[in-house]
Amino acid sequence: MDDKINVNALFLGPKAENYAFFKQMLNYLMDDYADWRTHFHPDDPPIVTAAEQDRPDFLATLQKTREALIDLAGNLQVKSVPWFSPRYLGHMTADTLLAANLGFMLTLLYNPNNCAYEGSPATTALEIEVGKQLAGMMGYDPQKAWGHITSGGTVANYEAVWMARNLKSFPLAVRMVRPELVVGKSDWQLLNLSTSAILDLADRAKEAGLFDEARRHSVRGLGLAGVRLGKILVPESKHYSWTKAADILGLGQENIVSVPVRDDYRMDIAALKREIDLLVAEHIPILAVVAVCGTTEEGAVDAFHEVVRLRDRYEDQGVGFYLHVDAAYGGYARTLFLDESGAFMGYNEVNRQHARQGVLHADMDWLQVDVYESFRALPDADSITVDPHKLGYVPYAAGAIVARDRRIVDLISYFAAYVFEKTDDNPTLLGSYIMEGSKAGAAVAAVWMAHRVVPLNLTGYGRIIGASIEGACRFHRSLLKAGPLEVCGREFEILPLTRPDINIVDYAFHEKGNDSLEEMNRLNQAIYERCSYKSGPVYVNDFITSKTALTREEYGETPRFFVEKFGLRNGEWERLGSVYVLRSCIVTPFLTHHLTFEEYWRNFWAAMARAIAAIHA
Amino acid sequence: MDDKINVNALFLGPKAENYAFFKQMLNYLMDDYADWRTHFHPDDPPIVTAAEQDRPDFLATLQKTREALIDLAGNLQVKSVPWFSPRYLGHMTADTLLAANLGFMLTLLYNPNNCAYEGSPATTALEIEVGKQLAGMMGYDPQKAWGHITSGGTVANYEAVWMARNLKSFPLAVRMVRPELVVGKSDWQLLNLSTSAILDLADRAKEAGLFDEARRHSVRGLGLAGVRLGKILVPESKHYSWTKAADILGLGQENIVSVPVRDDYRMDIAALKREIDLLVAEHIPILAVVAVCGTTEEGAVDAFHEVVRLRDRYEDQGVGFYLHVDAAYGGYARTLFLDESGAFMGYNEVNRQHARQGVLHADMDWLQVDVYESFRALPDADSITVDPHKLGYVPYAAGAIVARDRRIVDLISYFAAYVFEKTDDNPTLLGSYIMEGSKAGAAVAAVWMAHRVVPLNLTGYGRIIGASIEGACRFHRSLLKAGPLEVCGREFEILPLTRPDINIVDYAFHEKGNDSLEEMNRLNQAIYERCSYKSGPVYVNDFITSKTALTREEYGETPRFFVEKFGLRNGEWERLGSVYVLRSCIVTPFLTHHLTFEEYWRNFWAAMARAIAAIHA
Repeated sequence: MDDKINVNALFLGPKAENYAFFKQMLNYLMDDYADWRTHFHPDDPPIVTAAEQDRPDFLATLQKTREALIDLAGNLQVKSVPWFSPRYLGHMTADTLLAANLGFMLTLLYNPNNCAYEGSPATTALEIEVGKQLAGMMGYDPQKAWGHITSGGTVANYEAVWMARNLKSFPLAVRMVRPELVVGKSDWQLLNLSTSAILDLADRAKEAGLFDEARRHSVRGLGLAGVRLGKILVPESKHYSWTKAADILGLGQENIVSVPVRDDYRMDIAALKREIDLLVAEHIPILAVVAVCGTTEEGAVDAFHEVVRLRDRYEDQGVGFYLHVDAAYGGYARTLFLDESGAFMGYNEVNRQHARQGVLHADMDWLQVDVYESFRALPDADSITVDPHKLGYVPYAAGAIVARDRRIVDLISYFAAYVFEKTDDNPTLLGSYIMEGSKAGAAVAAVWMAHRVVPLNLTGYGRIIGASIEGACRFHRSLLKAGPLEVCGREFEILPLTRPDINIVDYAFHEKGNDSLEEMNRLNQAIYERCSYKSGPVYVNDFITSKTALTREEYGETPRFFVEKFGLRNGEWERLGSVYVLRSCIVTPFLTHHLTFEEYWRNFWAAMARAIAAIHA
Repeated sequence: MDDKINVNALFLGPKAENYAFFKQMLNYLMDDYADWRTHFHPDDPPIVTAAEQDRPDFLATLQKTREALIDLAGNLQVKSVPWFSPRYLGHMTADTLLAANLGFMLTLLYNPNNCAYEGSPATTALEIEVGKQLAGMMGYDPQKAWGHITSGGTVANYEAVWMARNLKSFPLAVRMVRPELVVGKSDWQLLNLSTSAILDLADRAKEAGLFDEARRHSVRGLGLAGVRLGKILVPESKHYSWTKAADILGLGQENIVSVPVRDDYRMDIAALKREIDLLVAEHIPILAVVAVCGTTEEGAVDAFHEVVRLRDRYEDQGVGFYLHVDAAYGGYARTLFLDESGAFMGYNEVNRQHARQGVLHADMDWLQVDVYESFRALPDADSITVDPHKLGYVPYAAGAIVARDRRIVDLISYFAAYVFEKTDDNPTLLGSYIMEGSKAGAAVAAVWMAHRVVPLNLTGYGRIIGASIEGACRFHRSLLKAGPLEVCGREFEILPLTRPDINIVDYAFHEKGNDSLEEMNRLNQAIYERCSYKSGPVYVNDFITSKTALTREEYGETPRFFVEKFGLRNGEWERLGSVYVLRSCIVTPFLTHHLTFEEYWRNFWAAMARAIAAIHA
């Protein structure tokens, strides 16, 4: 029992309950750091002398620093978001791990830059290690995979498109340089090789000594001016970074195809198949298909196992595309399915273990087979985005990308191929293998610390994320059970958008008898404004949440289903094409204890009543 | 006098001399932060109870955190780079500002994400403020300009290419959508409009209500498949992020044209003119010209004022291109020329003020007219990269980009145009106007703190950077004066590559009588290996530096001049095409005091003697 992680000991706590420990460790680390400086060449005399430290200009400079810090501290106190409290159920953030924060703060002083090993002998190694850990968490073989930290999911998504794009253009480049290697293949065939077939072709090009020349003839060298690589298929629920990616990578936003989602906000696999068939019929190549594991707005988990099945089937028919999963949000939830050896558990075993280990109480009935199967299939993706600064509970900024086959890095790396293995210097000139250049080693150390203290399986992260899911399930269930809220003699019903695939719950209020969607949207917007920075500093709010608008532009006709649940028919959705919902990411692990949940639920309900009363006052 | 910044009070110090102040402030800030949590809804009971804190699993979890931190701390102590000491003269890093470190550490706990205002009400505002400050530092009108923090200079350079690329493609897009707006203009003319002419055209498109449609027809929407935007001209001394940028942005690395540099490693302006003329003669458009202010390898400052003159002259001849300055390294040195009101001073006034304020002692004779004129001309660039984590003395990761005319953001922003001004919500949805998504508000707070304590003029940063330049000048002068180093009866002469334009000094040793460049390279490489992580943990080194190889591939025939200075003629350069040099960025501000400098010079000289002796032992 004692080896189990106690989740409450991992965080500073909503009332800074663990502050004594935090402060003790911080002072220990700071003293240790100061000693590091002092003991470096002990014979070097101090440069700043005691006499100088007494001078008026010296004291005035310290005072200036002091005043600036006090200003900053005041500003932060007034305006910052109290993620730490269960009263905050908004964005994808909650309290962050003590271990990660302390690791970040300490490493910051050493100021490593992971761009080059020379500037970060300690933390570059940690980044390579963390990359392997994340690859393993996703089910990849860490020895064959490749992974590293990015500033966030957005940059990780760009890097995925970069890899996919350069890879896709490579076979055509080989033909330019040495047609014999791809003899008998048409343009269409070359544009439809599978990822592994292209990587094998790259190996053959390397063996023939013409890899670099071929690379110079790929998009990397010649640009996109003469080549049409086709479309990227992404569900409607995509993060907006995908649209940015198509612009930045030179593919063009119009080459993003939005695949419809179903009522549960998961990608409609039948629609995906239709889109693919349409493109194939028109002889338009498919550069990549992207699935989402934990959509930003709804937390929905696309049925990735079905996407994989499609991919395999089309590959057999000569239609190949790159396959990426944007698991920026949901990625760490895969730990819920990993046993202590890192093995992916059987479905029944998951439920058994969750109950046995107290990860999730059985009565939550959270796990759906499709969600389970989707997480199981993740290692079939060519690459995956996963953000430690989301469900990894580390501070900003730390995203990550992992790729199944590290050979793919050669398609984007700055150096000539092979360098990775062949010299002792370059393997860790990380800036040459990734999109970014300078990057904080401190952020990497934070992730490393988190993984060191919290195992990447059901006994570690599984326990934290399980607690958050339990909170989400309770919240969802309470929304379903909640009678209408009576305010000033009027009745307001509340409905959740979907059942949580992970731990995000969207919901909306509706006044009984109202038949205007516009009015319903106004109501929810007004509630949001009372429960956000819109009403002034959030520190004085009773409850803080976020919101989103589900629009026709983004989601087609899907949101109509939700609108009609409130009895709003008569063309209300058709006319407006937008429904405003409140959005609560239940990332906090503190809403598990029954009494705690009940208390915060009452807070929530009372805050809603006050908000609505104020709106209608 | 007392209002002057005392540089020694700004840093923790090589011997942690200011640790008492640091620790006092840190503990004050941490207590203040803990109070912020405790006082949030004081009636909410603690979630972590004292009873739970005594439980074995709770204590075991704390112990796990403690052990992990001790491991990390030990690892960092053994392997990290002692930037703080004047014994470290390697990469572009030295001690970082106390104010910045403390601001970062505090803000980290509040964990703001500057991607969206909702997640960072305090620090998004700080980023907007910092962007304006940096724009002002560069001589732009902060009200018309645009600036923000990036993860580093690499991403800032990408963003510049992104802006330039989308801008360049816009006039052709306007013609597709509404030919009347560009009637009578040929392809060539449309591809050669000046930046301001294109932004004015964008305004006309907005007025005509077709801006968004035109944008959809630009590269942003359609991609690069159908359009050839031409070449990017960058000096040979460029950072490798420019090559990466051409790949990532879909332009292709082969569309980078490397402009030769002269013996002083500044771009050869006559060669630039020749390249432009060649391209114009072939009717190949020029997408952008990039100048460097502080090259990564030599610290050279391109004669930007001459580039501007060329730009203006070509514009008059109907040849327009985007103009960017990569001042990632040198940007903050512009503060040396700004008086307390922020005005750029006259040449003689600069020298007078530097002497009067003790920024640089007159006998340094540092300032060359071309360097002065180059910094003066910076506001004539369309955009500038400038990294706070370099000469801004803040910790990683904080780069920045500033653009002269904020209208350019509309060409890359995710939202429809106008949104920036028209709603109260979006101006601060920063992620929609920049390349990155999630980004640490804490890094921004660090920059804000730095600027708050250290004014962006000669009395603030000018004083710190002036001190570093003085150290570089002393080092350079000492290299010139140094007699040959006698080791075991052999004589080794040393020569600097160039006179420092800012504060980087490259140099190489050569054994008298040796006439092999290969052997000379081996010697310097061996010295480097003894003065870097290559010989084991750098903490035990007497002196730490970095190196670079000046190769024909990158620099053409320019390095021959340096090789011949050592008397190595007879085709040695022709045969090898690479000369290995040691590279010292004198970023430390502590090598000004005469005694201090002499002491560390002796250290350096003795370390070199020991290194050479060990090599030849």
